[in-house]
Amino acid sequence: MSTNTKSITANSLFVNIPKDVWTMTAEITGMAKQHPKNANREMISLGQGFFSYSPPQFLLDATSNALNSDPLNNQYAPTRGDLRLIESIKNYYNQFYDGLQNENITITTGANEAILAILIGLLNPHEEVIVLEPFFDQYISNIKIPQGKIKYVTIHPPSDLSQGKHSGNDWKINYDELEAAINEKTKVLILNTPHNPIGKIFTKEELTKIGDICYKHNIKIISDEVYEQLYFDDSQGFPRIATLDPKYAEITLTVGSFGKAFCATGHRVGYIISKNAELLKYPAAAHTRICFSTPHPPQVACAESLTLASKNGYFEDMRVNYNDKFQKLMKVFDFLNISYTVPQGTYFIIADFSNVNVPFETYEFPEELQSKPRDFKLCYWLAVELGVITIPTTEFFTDEYVKKNPSVEYLLRFAVCKTDDYIDRACERLKELKPHMK
Amino acid sequence: MSTNTKSITANSLFVNIPKDVWTMTAEITGMAKQHPKNANREMISLGQGFFSYSPPQFLLDATSNALNSDPLNNQYAPTRGDLRLIESIKNYYNQFYDGLQNENITITTGANEAILAILIGLLNPHEEVIVLEPFFDQYISNIKIPQGKIKYVTIHPPSDLSQGKHSGNDWKINYDELEAAINEKTKVLILNTPHNPIGKIFTKEELTKIGDICYKHNIKIISDEVYEQLYFDDSQGFPRIATLDPKYAEITLTVGSFGKAFCATGHRVGYIISKNAELLKYPAAAHTRICFSTPHPPQVACAESLTLASKNGYFEDMRVNYNDKFQKLMKVFDFLNISYTVPQGTYFIIADFSNVNVPFETYEFPEELQSKPRDFKLCYWLAVELGVITIPTTEFFTDEYVKKNPSVEYLLRFAVCKTDDYIDRACERLKELKPHMK
Repeated sequence: MSTNTKSITANSLFVNIPKDVWTMTAEITGMAKQHPKNANREMISLGQGFFSYSPPQFLLDATSNALNSDPLNNQYAPTRGDLRLIESIKNYYNQFYDGLQNENITITTGANEAILAILIGLLNPHEEVIVLEPFFDQYISNIKIPQGKIKYVTIHPPSDLSQGKHSGNDWKINYDELEAAINEKTKVLILNTPHNPIGKIFTKEELTKIGDICYKHNIKIISDEVYEQLYFDDSQGFPRIATLDPKYAEITLTVGSFGKAFCATGHRVGYIISKNAELLKYPAAAHTRICFSTPHPPQVACAESLTLASKNGYFEDMRVNYNDKFQKLMKVFDFLNISYTVPQGTYFIIADFSNVNVPFETYEFPEELQSKPRDFKLCYWLAVELGVITIPTTEFFTDEYVKKNPSVEYLLRFAVCKTDDYIDRACERLKELKPHMK
Repeated sequence: MSTNTKSITANSLFVNIPKDVWTMTAEITGMAKQHPKNANREMISLGQGFFSYSPPQFLLDATSNALNSDPLNNQYAPTRGDLRLIESIKNYYNQFYDGLQNENITITTGANEAILAILIGLLNPHEEVIVLEPFFDQYISNIKIPQGKIKYVTIHPPSDLSQGKHSGNDWKINYDELEAAINEKTKVLILNTPHNPIGKIFTKEELTKIGDICYKHNIKIISDEVYEQLYFDDSQGFPRIATLDPKYAEITLTVGSFGKAFCATGHRVGYIISKNAELLKYPAAAHTRICFSTPHPPQVACAESLTLASKNGYFEDMRVNYNDKFQKLMKVFDFLNISYTVPQGTYFIIADFSNVNVPFETYEFPEELQSKPRDFKLCYWLAVELGVITIPTTEFFTDEYVKKNPSVEYLLRFAVCKTDDYIDRACERLKELKPHMK
């Protein structure tokens, strides 16, 4: 019972907005859990991209040690970041970049805050940002908070999405469309490679085209590379746009995340690298006003852990492990004849469920899902029938795109950042789809 | 040598802005350190408000334990905060509030992000926020980021600021001035009690007047109470505006900080409490888009530590210790005949240095300080002559106010969140001012 008498008018950005996909997925999980079919089994979530296991012990030990070794580790870090971490990042990335200095690095409170700080640091109201679709949903509010305007450019799926295996290279930008989206208000382009949710790694050729277009129009590039340690195609490795040409380096701000690199999404340490120290000054100033400084003990721990990981094969092992996890899932998809895009990177895989006989018309879906695209219903159906949670992918596209391209309503995203045993159990359940296949 | 060829146009908020007081103080420290007078002594900083010592061991142990006890403690916390922390806060504050529920609390990445999240959650461009002057400088950018406009209302210093001891109660708001600052665009008022830098605790009578005015005009109150555990006047305790009247509770968002409560400014856990759950929804939504979620291990540790501290006398001991620290400094000020405002709360004390003979006209000040108000020169002079760092306070006022009231150019802020030994050494040095007194 509310006894409030005073009206609340909030920022229109946050008024009457639909629930985000993470909240919706949590609610779908909750509703499916109540279903009698899940009465005697654990729900298995390959939904949100958090790890089901601990970060490496060396990170945890380094964190405990940071807490107890120097009182000042527990106090405000410098706003640009702890010097030990900046130097560790500098040393690590100098294997890819040419002559990074401390001034080319700033620490942020996670990668999301990094992107927000860049956009707040650079955008004046009504300036435009190009977002490649499909996109990670946080980009949208990151742009809207500083009153920026979004222009979408599609990464077109392969035309035969529902058949066979695809590669990230089959998802393509049309560069005429990219040029057409640019006008005198265009300030920033957000690139995400390895790409969530497609798993695509942009090739050198693609990055060169994007870089040339952005440089020509003086558009700054946010290169969200938080999944950089996870690439599975050794033939091309992981190309970083800022390292391909000094021209691109001049306009690029690269975003990284220790939450992803060290399986510690709850520690909230990210960073921005830019060869253009002058450009980096603005995100750094914005960061100071957003979070003031980033949690200090995990910075000290990340400094030590990055140095260690670059020597002890940690990242190489991680790649092997994730490749194994993907192989498990892909084997099941092959068995079911479910089409998918082979992940070149990230810990996500998207699969096309149009081959599955889902009784969309006759099944009892919760009221809340009635008006939602089919992937939400698919998620619910999978959650009830198999007790397996996935993420609907239409939320990574604009409504307009989905309306014109209903085939994406059959795509689901699976996260494999879970233990092998957990993945195995998910696979066992997914196999039960066999009788439901068309 | 820059080889950049592309222009950078950043958010005008961050272009050509003067250095903030924290950067300036760091630079003053650096310059003073180079002076021959400091060649053989350590600089003693009573400047920035961070602790020179470790958080209580129970917090550090709880953090290490959180890291190692459950893998999920290392992954994303729920965006509203870890449930254990929300419940611990609820239980703790229900000694002051009436029937807080979980929905009345949301966790943020420090108190600064809490205030930013409230302002981003509530403000539409060009809406107005009332700031009581002097003010903590982060408020200003917190308001400007969502394009808010600031109206200043002065907390007037006592007219005889440079003579004798004053109380926080001698610093007064003129309520006609407050009413006059309000118009149809006024959305929020920021209150800070205990007040940085004055050390003032607003009385029940003052809060009632502010609350009535805000309620009448439907102005939401941000009550920044991060120094709530530090109050030294037991006769009035620490009045919390949201607990004085259900009307005020309806319009108030109270901000707290574990960094302050547990001497861990680098752990970055803050929170917002509002009896108005509907009002709190918007800052919580904004927080999700700013930081996504708050560092998880320290949340688990704060949950446990708050419960413990409410039973083991930790906060009471802290008050006694801080009172002792203040007594040491005040004794020196009395000895020197330096006027000050007796802190009712916070870990800051402001003192008036107009009685000190500083050779403003003949001393060699760095070029950078020439155009700055006298308190910056005072700081530099103290840093060179005594090796003691303080904070100039004109930065807590608008330029306009300082121009009209040059007497505030003699106020310096001292932070006492340092070990007793450190404070003692600072006091010994300050005593050397005796021959310089007028």
